[in-house]
Amino acid sequence: MGGFCGVISKEDCVSDLFYGTDYHSHLGTHRGGMCLLGSKGFQRSIHNIQNAPFRSKFENDVGRLSGNVGLGVISDTDPQPLVMRCALGTFALVTVGLINNIEALMVEMFEKSHLQLQYSTTSGMVGPTEVVSAILASASSLEEGARLVQEKVQGSCSFMIVTEGGRLLVVRDRYGRTPVVIGRKQGSMIALQESCALPNLGYDHVRDLGPGEMVELTPDGEVVTLIEPGEEMAICSFFWVYYGFPASSYEGRNVEMARYRCGGHLARRNPVEADAVGGVPDSGTSHALGYAHEAGLKFARPFVKYTPTWARSFMPSDQRQREHVAAMKLIPIPGLIKDRRLVVCDDSIVRGTQLGRQAKRLFAAGAKETHMRIACPPLVYPCRFINFSRSKSEYDLITRRFIRDHGGEGADLEKYTDPDSPAYKEMVEYIRANLGFTSLAFQRLDDLVASIGLPKERLCTYCFDGKDPSIKGACPCAGACAACKAEK
Amino acid sequence: MGGFCGVISKEDCVSDLFYGTDYHSHLGTHRGGMCLLGSKGFQRSIHNIQNAPFRSKFENDVGRLSGNVGLGVISDTDPQPLVMRCALGTFALVTVGLINNIEALMVEMFEKSHLQLQYSTTSGMVGPTEVVSAILASASSLEEGARLVQEKVQGSCSFMIVTEGGRLLVVRDRYGRTPVVIGRKQGSMIALQESCALPNLGYDHVRDLGPGEMVELTPDGEVVTLIEPGEEMAICSFFWVYYGFPASSYEGRNVEMARYRCGGHLARRNPVEADAVGGVPDSGTSHALGYAHEAGLKFARPFVKYTPTWARSFMPSDQRQREHVAAMKLIPIPGLIKDRRLVVCDDSIVRGTQLGRQAKRLFAAGAKETHMRIACPPLVYPCRFINFSRSKSEYDLITRRFIRDHGGEGADLEKYTDPDSPAYKEMVEYIRANLGFTSLAFQRLDDLVASIGLPKERLCTYCFDGKDPSIKGACPCAGACAACKAEK
Amino acid sequence: MGGFCGVISKEDCVSDLFYGTDYHSHLGTHRGGMCLLGSKGFQRSIHNIQNAPFRSKFENDVGRLSGNVGLGVISDTDPQPLVMRCALGTFALVTVGLINNIEALMVEMFEKSHLQLQYSTTSGMVGPTEVVSAILASASSLEEGARLVQEKVQGSCSFMIVTEGGRLLVVRDRYGRTPVVIGRKQGSMIALQESCALPNLGYDHVRDLGPGEMVELTPDGEVVTLIEPGEEMAICSFFWVYYGFPASSYEGRNVEMARYRCGGHLARRNPVEADAVGGVPDSGTSHALGYAHEAGLKFARPFVKYTPTWARSFMPSDQRQREHVAAMKLIPIPGLIKDRRLVVCDDSIVRGTQLGRQAKRLFAAGAKETHMRIACPPLVYPCRFINFSRSKSEYDLITRRFIRDHGGEGADLEKYTDPDSPAYKEMVEYIRANLGFTSLAFQRLDDLVASIGLPKERLCTYCFDGKDPSIKGACPCAGACAACKAEK
Amino acid sequence: MGGFCGVISKEDCVSDLFYGTDYHSHLGTHRGGMCLLGSKGFQRSIHNIQNAPFRSKFENDVGRLSGNVGLGVISDTDPQPLVMRCALGTFALVTVGLINNIEALMVEMFEKSHLQLQYSTTSGMVGPTEVVSAILASASSLEEGARLVQEKVQGSCSFMIVTEGGRLLVVRDRYGRTPVVIGRKQGSMIALQESCALPNLGYDHVRDLGPGEMVELTPDGEVVTLIEPGEEMAICSFFWVYYGFPASSYEGRNVEMARYRCGGHLARRNPVEADAVGGVPDSGTSHALGYAHEAGLKFARPFVKYTPTWARSFMPSDQRQREHVAAMKLIPIPGLIKDRRLVVCDDSIVRGTQLGRQAKRLFAAGAKETHMRIACPPLVYPCRFINFSRSKSEYDLITRRFIRDHGGEGADLEKYTDPDSPAYKEMVEYIRANLGFTSLAFQRLDDLVASIGLPKERLCTYCFDGKDPSIKGACPCAGACAACKAEK
Repeated sequence: MGGFCGVISKEDCVSDLFYGTDYHSHLGTHRGGMCLLGSKGFQRSIHNIQNAPFRSKFENDVGRLSGNVGLGVISDTDPQPLVMRCALGTFALVTVGLINNIEALMVEMFEKSHLQLQYSTTSGMVGPTEVVSAILASASSLEEGARLVQEKVQGSCSFMIVTEGGRLLVVRDRYGRTPVVIGRKQGSMIALQESCALPNLGYDHVRDLGPGEMVELTPDGEVVTLIEPGEEMAICSFFWVYYGFPASSYEGRNVEMARYRCGGHLARRNPVEADAVGGVPDSGTSHALGYAHEAGLKFARPFVKYTPTWARSFMPSDQRQREHVAAMKLIPIPGLIKDRRLVVCDDSIVRGTQLGRQAKRLFAAGAKETHMRIACPPLVYPCRFINFSRSKSEYDLITRRFIRDHGGEGADLEKYTDPDSPAYKEMVEYIRANLGFTSLAFQRLDDLVASIGLPKERLCTYCFDGKDPSIKGACPCAGACAACKAEK
Repeated sequence: MGGFCGVISKEDCVSDLFYGTDYHSHLGTHRGGMCLLGSKGFQRSIHNIQNAPFRSKFENDVGRLSGNVGLGVISDTDPQPLVMRCALGTFALVTVGLINNIEALMVEMFEKSHLQLQYSTTSGMVGPTEVVSAILASASSLEEGARLVQEKVQGSCSFMIVTEGGRLLVVRDRYGRTPVVIGRKQGSMIALQESCALPNLGYDHVRDLGPGEMVELTPDGEVVTLIEPGEEMAICSFFWVYYGFPASSYEGRNVEMARYRCGGHLARRNPVEADAVGGVPDSGTSHALGYAHEAGLKFARPFVKYTPTWARSFMPSDQRQREHVAAMKLIPIPGLIKDRRLVVCDDSIVRGTQLGRQAKRLFAAGAKETHMRIACPPLVYPCRFINFSRSKSEYDLITRRFIRDHGGEGADLEKYTDPDSPAYKEMVEYIRANLGFTSLAFQRLDDLVASIGLPKERLCTYCFDGKDPSIKGACPCAGACAACKAEK
Repeated sequence: MGGFCGVISKEDCVSDLFYGTDYHSHLGTHRGGMCLLGSKGFQRSIHNIQNAPFRSKFENDVGRLSGNVGLGVISDTDPQPLVMRCALGTFALVTVGLINNIEALMVEMFEKSHLQLQYSTTSGMVGPTEVVSAILASASSLEEGARLVQEKVQGSCSFMIVTEGGRLLVVRDRYGRTPVVIGRKQGSMIALQESCALPNLGYDHVRDLGPGEMVELTPDGEVVTLIEPGEEMAICSFFWVYYGFPASSYEGRNVEMARYRCGGHLARRNPVEADAVGGVPDSGTSHALGYAHEAGLKFARPFVKYTPTWARSFMPSDQRQREHVAAMKLIPIPGLIKDRRLVVCDDSIVRGTQLGRQAKRLFAAGAKETHMRIACPPLVYPCRFINFSRSKSEYDLITRRFIRDHGGEGADLEKYTDPDSPAYKEMVEYIRANLGFTSLAFQRLDDLVASIGLPKERLCTYCFDGKDPSIKGACPCAGACAACKAEK
Repeated sequence: MGGFCGVISKEDCVSDLFYGTDYHSHLGTHRGGMCLLGSKGFQRSIHNIQNAPFRSKFENDVGRLSGNVGLGVISDTDPQPLVMRCALGTFALVTVGLINNIEALMVEMFEKSHLQLQYSTTSGMVGPTEVVSAILASASSLEEGARLVQEKVQGSCSFMIVTEGGRLLVVRDRYGRTPVVIGRKQGSMIALQESCALPNLGYDHVRDLGPGEMVELTPDGEVVTLIEPGEEMAICSFFWVYYGFPASSYEGRNVEMARYRCGGHLARRNPVEADAVGGVPDSGTSHALGYAHEAGLKFARPFVKYTPTWARSFMPSDQRQREHVAAMKLIPIPGLIKDRRLVVCDDSIVRGTQLGRQAKRLFAAGAKETHMRIACPPLVYPCRFINFSRSKSEYDLITRRFIRDHGGEGADLEKYTDPDSPAYKEMVEYIRANLGFTSLAFQRLDDLVASIGLPKERLCTYCFDGKDPSIKGACPCAGACAACKAEK
């Protein structure tokens, strides 16, 4: 997924940029980058953050870099920020999102123009930020370029630009799938994805950008709108379910509190007699606290995450180590498991492998019952919009494997998204039996929407019901089927 | 403080050693080390872990090192493991603890013997492990050497040895101040400090070593006692209050559950009307869960720790960054603070600076009341036994500053340790007012002892009441006053 | 300046590419790079070689990279090889040379096309290889692109391409200012700049490319001409005087032997009674051997270069060290200096600072006389063609400072290039006196041309006489004056 | 072998120490180290220099370290400098030499004292510097300790000490096998092995230490003798033949000039009709210049060493690269070989493998005749005194393989050291034929001694004739045979 941060200030902004970017570390594990524009021109640093945190890798750069305006990024795709020169001048660029039609975009541009794009020998492809930059370069102004990006990109793309003249431009993706938040303090403005970064850096929350909105931030504290926000919005519900840091709020809705409400709804809809409620860290913990409070049950931690070194899931380069990663993160506390009937909350079920394994460990440690409560509905449609890594290909999803095996390849998916249908119930029972839980319940979509607190039509719930404003006629094809194409 | 791990196996043990050592990462931030004995002899790797986790620094070594027996260490003092040759042969050594009389020990040995000791240009001193090795080398056998170390060291010293012949020897400090736990699986034995490392590596808990006990572990699963454990024991209570990882148990008492009981006792003794209970992460969270449950109040997180990069308090090398460290770790969730009467649990108060600052932030975010509940009694005596970094010099302690200012330099400390005395109440009120809390209560020592669940005489409670089995006549001088010296 | 190497083979070619590129280390000190195309696609490695040799920096890459075709480069300008994707496909690219009109080329392209170019935050500019790639991308085929590069670039540009299909394409700059040599062994072909790399890697010399020639090399040993060589040629004479490695030959003329002949000519034209002949390492040594033999004098080394660590002039990052660099490289041998009349040969005089300093050191060590003999004529025109770093701006040249001070800014330069003119003699006497030599003689241009052994019209002698085939009407303006522009 | 440097100054000496140590880089390829004593106490840096030069590895340390007195070392054995604390205080130590009886010394010390020694996991042994330190620590003063080291060490050991009080102590090995030279400039004194380092750092040569001499250097320029030099001296002749840098002088005899005389003697004794004389770089070049001058033949370079990256023989870690190392260093110049009768000078023949290979390459390149002239006599006895790596075990020597095969295991070696004996002539003819030379001549020992210019009894010529002052009765057993042992 990834996250980004931009700062413009009357003074040196490297420290704010460093900490502001660092607070997006939970959003990516591949590359980190910072670029500042100062008296020495653009200065940039990019590091591999696969096996050490952003802060470890960049702390030496803080002393070396300086400038009044800059960009930082945690990227799961390509090394960023890029600094490019084109007819519009020289600028730095960071992007966040997912470009589904990247190959088609390149072919289109190669046909029109004598373009060249850096090919990354690390990833074996041209990076999305490179392609966004090329679209910008093909326009007669950066504003026009920003419009073009939003028109052409299928998926989502939020980005920030620092021009050689020292302007900081911020663009949120067309449907506002990823959040962009603006903060202000005396002499400085900041734009970023995770609002939790604001208070410790002394910024007040100004507002969230609207979908597709483009603004310029000035060190005087102004937010100058360059492109008005669009009407339609589809912010990803998973920011509240799983992605977002608990202290962040998007569109005015706090993550931690939404999770308490998620847990509360689960408790009301799916009561069960139990001795304690626990959660699968990190996000499951908040859901479980909400459940325990609503159910009047004791919250206790059957598992603790070993955060000192497993804070992030670094991917070790040695094969012997890699096999251990999944098993090592969570440590059981046998005294809180043995002879107990446990409710365990988790954010979601993708393949189900991990949660099934934890259930086995609970039983092995003497648990009497395991009642799994999942904070969101079953995932039926793999994400096409923000590179949400938890739902990769269709048949990675345990739901789709069940549907294929029971309903056939062409099965009507819709009935599996209706919690009151027999097909849905059969699917949930299959998952429960398959993963070995005593009981299993998923959140209802209306409860999830109520927990978040935004109107359903402002949220992307595509994973759960295949619906999204970008999809014409509510067809689950993401605009790929003949009918939808015709409609366009 | 530090932690260590030793493994002996019929097969290569590098992976178990790596992960086993890594699970001690919460105990130190200075140097990490691993040493294995295999077909290529002793192989060793030592890295600075001040700005990156043990796992990041050692993951490449895992592929490079191999052997059937080895030692790992997280050290806050000197680079370890050492590999030394002496009349007893060549051996690898790791130590954990605190040697108060290190200078006197060196002078004594220089007088007796033509000894030389590596001087560390990093720390500007001879390291404690070097000195322990020299004591071992001065004996006619490693067993005799181990006895000598326990006799001579004032403070504490647990250690492990791998001999060139492939033996793994494990020694717990004389009074058992730090834990040493033995685990077994088919074909392998492990010794370490944090029992939470056992389950994920597949080891069953065999037993804890007794105070001063020395054993040899064999790959066949035997634990051969070489020195019988002593009678007296004084394991540090702070392992339950603050140091230990929640999933660990020492002497059969689990940390997380002890913290729930701590919170429960606090709730019973110091009830207050409130809207929610929260804890200062990490250890305060468990104390708060116990409090909330006992008090029937809602647990909610007014602060969340940004674990992705602040899992451990790395000390950045750049001054600009260093000033930010304390402020950056915890992020407030305003919606859980505003207009609320909050109970906040924390493990202990040393200087009080941090907790005072958090209280100010709570009020700034709109909290109506802040009721601080501290999981242990006031710290009155700085630790002399295990390098417990939270209580440094006397007047670092807010209690001692109060006592000095109100009772004078020679004040009777004992009355300040009695929760029913007026002096104690005056001191607590001073701290409350000074740090700006609505109310403040400390745990009573008897409640702490009951929460841990061991007899008081088996615990070190020196910080709280100045009493310790190593101190003759229960004098708080740690054997330094004339009377105690005479008694010796 | 820089150097490059390309290999195509039926087997893995990483070792040949590594050593082949390494043998160009005397040509650059900034960045090194290697790129291979193998089963994993393009793999690339680029390192900073400012403070450690190419071999040190790349030896770990040799085990990691593999492929049947690849490019290597020692670059004094931008990080290379680039790997670019454009309408013509994906290809890797290395370049050597100097693009004087780089800014104009970019502006022209930005006007025509929606181009974007990576801006280097290290050098603060767009790199020349990036621009060459963009010219290639603007064409309908790589052949047409290669023609365009030769047409558009003012200066020189040789380059090599590896296409994603595995072709190795080699292009020599329009006037053949830098050499490109082809070698063959069973199952492999190589293209590079320094022919001295061939024998140790087992390659036989096939032929030198002609000026502007483009060929494709196949692993079967074929050299397929894609663009025929041009008529005019102007290979830089300085390859024989100073740049080239002694064991290299260009256009069939060996460097070491040319230097012996240079020394011989100097001895015949400028005889002097002396006790010994020495040279300023490295290139001065060979000139001096030729002088000594011709003059029947003893060759002896008054200075020795400390090659173990001063093999290349690394530029240290610490200021304190930087001041020492110039002084540290050469070590005097007093016994070979004291009371002696010395002839000292050097390749050329730019500012004269270094040679003047060495003369002072010789006198300080007791030398009776210092007779300086310079292997080429006085440098009057700064190089505009190959980034020859020894002659930077006009008034860096001691000759031009003399001419400005004695003839005025608009002085006729031509008479100072005629060794028989009074102006020339006055200039040489000025230099001699200014630098403190007993006597001073420069090579005559006709003698230099004879020493190299190529027809004068095939050589670039612009530094010495301002003449070059690319300059219309033999005007020294390099095509910049109004008349020349009209003629174009 | 290794080399060292010590500086004491009234001002910061890090720059002099850095460059002074760097000028010993030709003497070792394993570890480099620097240690300074300044206001922060001892500061130390040690780096692996196996794959990058000392200067590359230490240039960052120069800015970080500071102090008025310090030690630097190029070590082929153990990581140095050590900093040790013992009854005599804390001191830094560097050593150069060879301790043959290291194991016996340790056993002896372990018997007497409760000693411990750091065991190096890199080398799999206790390092010699560690053992020297232990001997020093066993004495009642550093002077007594220095005497003990000279008494006990079989082989040689020169060393320098910096005490915590800031004294710089310098000790030359008992027989002066390795040189130690003292230099002085205003406010600074330097001690080192290679006198060539003095002029560029601005030091005047004061004097060489005598054999076994111990002195203290003061920043006021005093050389205070603490142990008087011994009578007997046996400086290694190989410093002039091969080891020493040309610009260095030992005992007043310059290396470069000695090599010219070596070549001159070879030319007089072994004249041959030839077209040119060349040398095998580096040391063979100087021998060849002397030969050419004496013989009136032309000197020309049939081989050139690729110094830019092969300045030192780094040992690459990748096996594929390692096989190339020997072949890559020297590059032939075919035009100087073809159809020529060549005299080629080299310093010595050990196994003969390399020289045989070069001869084959010469013939392959068209040479008509190869007349090898070796600057020293045949090596018959492997060095036991200074870790001279060129003559390892007995049967590494081509001479000894011949003697074993022709004279048997117990053959009288002496006759093979007499250039006038038939046995000697048979041996030389065997080597010539075996290695494929047209003719072969070795230097006579008397000519070598004359070339160096010191009395034979002051030189170690053990390699050539088995004679050395440390050997009783001139027996070639190095004190190992029964008779010699009795004599002791």
